[in-house]
Amino acid sequence: MKKIKLGIVGCGIAARELHLPALVDLKDKFEISAVTSRRKESAEEFAQMIKTQLGYTPEIFNSYEAMLDSKSVDAVDLTLPIELNVPFIKKSIEKGFHVICEKPISTDVETGKEIIELSTKTDRVIYIAENYRHDFRFNKIRNIVDENVIGKPVFVIWHLWIGMDKSNKYAKTAWRQNPKHIGGFLSDGGVHHIAALRVIFGDIAWVSGTVKRVSDYLGDDDSLSAVFEFKNGVIGNYTISYALSGRQYFEIVGTNGRIYMDESKIRIVGEHGAEIQIPEENTFKNEFLDFYEVLTQGKPNVLGHPVEALKDLAFFEAAIRSRGMRIEVDSLMK
Amino acid sequence: MKKIKLGIVGCGIAARELHLPALVDLKDKFEISAVTSRRKESAEEFAQMIKTQLGYTPEIFNSYEAMLDSKSVDAVDLTLPIELNVPFIKKSIEKGFHVICEKPISTDVETGKEIIELSTKTDRVIYIAENYRHDFRFNKIRNIVDENVIGKPVFVIWHLWIGMDKSNKYAKTAWRQNPKHIGGFLSDGGVHHIAALRVIFGDIAWVSGTVKRVSDYLGDDDSLSAVFEFKNGVIGNYTISYALSGRQYFEIVGTNGRIYMDESKIRIVGEHGAEIQIPEENTFKNEFLDFYEVLTQGKPNVLGHPVEALKDLAFFEAAIRSRGMRIEVDSLMK
Repeated sequence: MKKIKLGIVGCGIAARELHLPALVDLKDKFEISAVTSRRKESAEEFAQMIKTQLGYTPEIFNSYEAMLDSKSVDAVDLTLPIELNVPFIKKSIEKGFHVICEKPISTDVETGKEIIELSTKTDRVIYIAENYRHDFRFNKIRNIVDENVIGKPVFVIWHLWIGMDKSNKYAKTAWRQNPKHIGGFLSDGGVHHIAALRVIFGDIAWVSGTVKRVSDYLGDDDSLSAVFEFKNGVIGNYTISYALSGRQYFEIVGTNGRIYMDESKIRIVGEHGAEIQIPEENTFKNEFLDFYEVLTQGKPNVLGHPVEALKDLAFFEAAIRSRGMRIEVDSLMK
Repeated sequence: MKKIKLGIVGCGIAARELHLPALVDLKDKFEISAVTSRRKESAEEFAQMIKTQLGYTPEIFNSYEAMLDSKSVDAVDLTLPIELNVPFIKKSIEKGFHVICEKPISTDVETGKEIIELSTKTDRVIYIAENYRHDFRFNKIRNIVDENVIGKPVFVIWHLWIGMDKSNKYAKTAWRQNPKHIGGFLSDGGVHHIAALRVIFGDIAWVSGTVKRVSDYLGDDDSLSAVFEFKNGVIGNYTISYALSGRQYFEIVGTNGRIYMDESKIRIVGEHGAEIQIPEENTFKNEFLDFYEVLTQGKPNVLGHPVEALKDLAFFEAAIRSRGMRIEVDSLMK
């Protein structure tokens, strides 16, 4: 079996803590052949981690351009400040490489459209990594809903209180403290939740919401509450704060039962009551495996398609612009 | 101490189950001197209940007009189909009687303004009975918030799943099955919740929401989800269904703690954690006692003021009209 030679670009938290463990699990499918970072010491540290965990040392490049020119990789894995995603994806495609890029796709919807356009013109794979699309929980809940276990779903409600303090490792990231992308943590982290809800219910028609800035250290608005409607008629209600602490709450209410989700289980209440343990899984591994199958087995790029990632982001751009006014998500996508 | 002679108009569920027990508790302050109903048997049944519980029989009138002309009451208590509130309040004031009228004030905001106008021109008391303004829970929570126990409040979230089936006594009421008022059960029952939230946080600036009709037996739209902002900047999130069952959820999230409320207690989580038992109380008794003090002691009519009731209703008219668009609540009140 051919291994994909992967060049990792950006050697920060996502590369070290999210992607590397998945690639260690998939060491028969991927070889991390190269790394690069703006900070040489960071690339060297990361190369050392790879040596320790995988037993080989990747080539270290001083620049992304040098990595691409070296032809020592088949595909690049971008784990970068958000504002670099679009230019770096473009460079990779220009040079003929496949690319997997950590979400969100771009700083804003308009910029992200360049990637959609590009994806229609290239035979290279542009895969936006959104691990929540590969998550047991949301795929399982979609199946439960599709099998009519709770009747017709009417409402989905999700409250998340992330409560990051100043010492949080993400809060301390320089590019997150001075974000060049819309919505700061709201879109950066929030695209996961909207991706998850779209796994269950499909596309969102419109959103109305409002944002607040509660903390003075999270770089931008950090709290949001929105009501929205999926194209299938389900009403959504999503409230999140990266500044405030609280108790997470996830509930789907249908005509014949409800679904709750907590850290460890999915619980169905109603006629067909049941409890489903959430298995341990590495959703990043699922995602890289899908990317691998897209690259090597001609599997269509559905879950990593840039349009899906852009729809997740469009929800936030709409909610942030909304100030209580209804915005059709598709109006941003056009 | 002078007793108020009260004529009860409408002898249905509200008169029998909500007002009568309160008036029994306040028998030293009120005498139910007269009753009337469109259905004579209903008035006779109700008079018999009063006989049993209070030991005297009120005069039974065949019509509201006859009751008013008889001069045998000081004030009338209107527990009627909503569409009769405005015309019956007007008749009472024309004839020189004080009036207490069960919420909601009117079928819609425009009609309700006639009562606001009337209240500025009469020295008679027009008291709209909203028992949630007299409820320990919301007054206590307001105090907790005002005393800065949870820091600055940012979000309030309330989900209510009333889940009425076809056999529910309210669902079986003819005028509720064919409502002449806006919003069916949503406004009829919902004004309580918005009154409660306004006790805590004051007036609402704008609302954006959407409604659904889930059942085929509740007369109108029966489910609503809305996001809104109080004038003090707190963001509200209110989701309710009279058709769907579920688990109620009430949460206030502040910068330094949260407040939860369930059937039996108010719970503060955070630095100043505490549990407060909710005492047994009859909020209708509180309300009639306030009405009594307004009538006899020159107490200002604050909690029963028609403007307060109209603001509660205006929230629903805005949310129902909204279809996701932002509506300023004051724009309806003008």
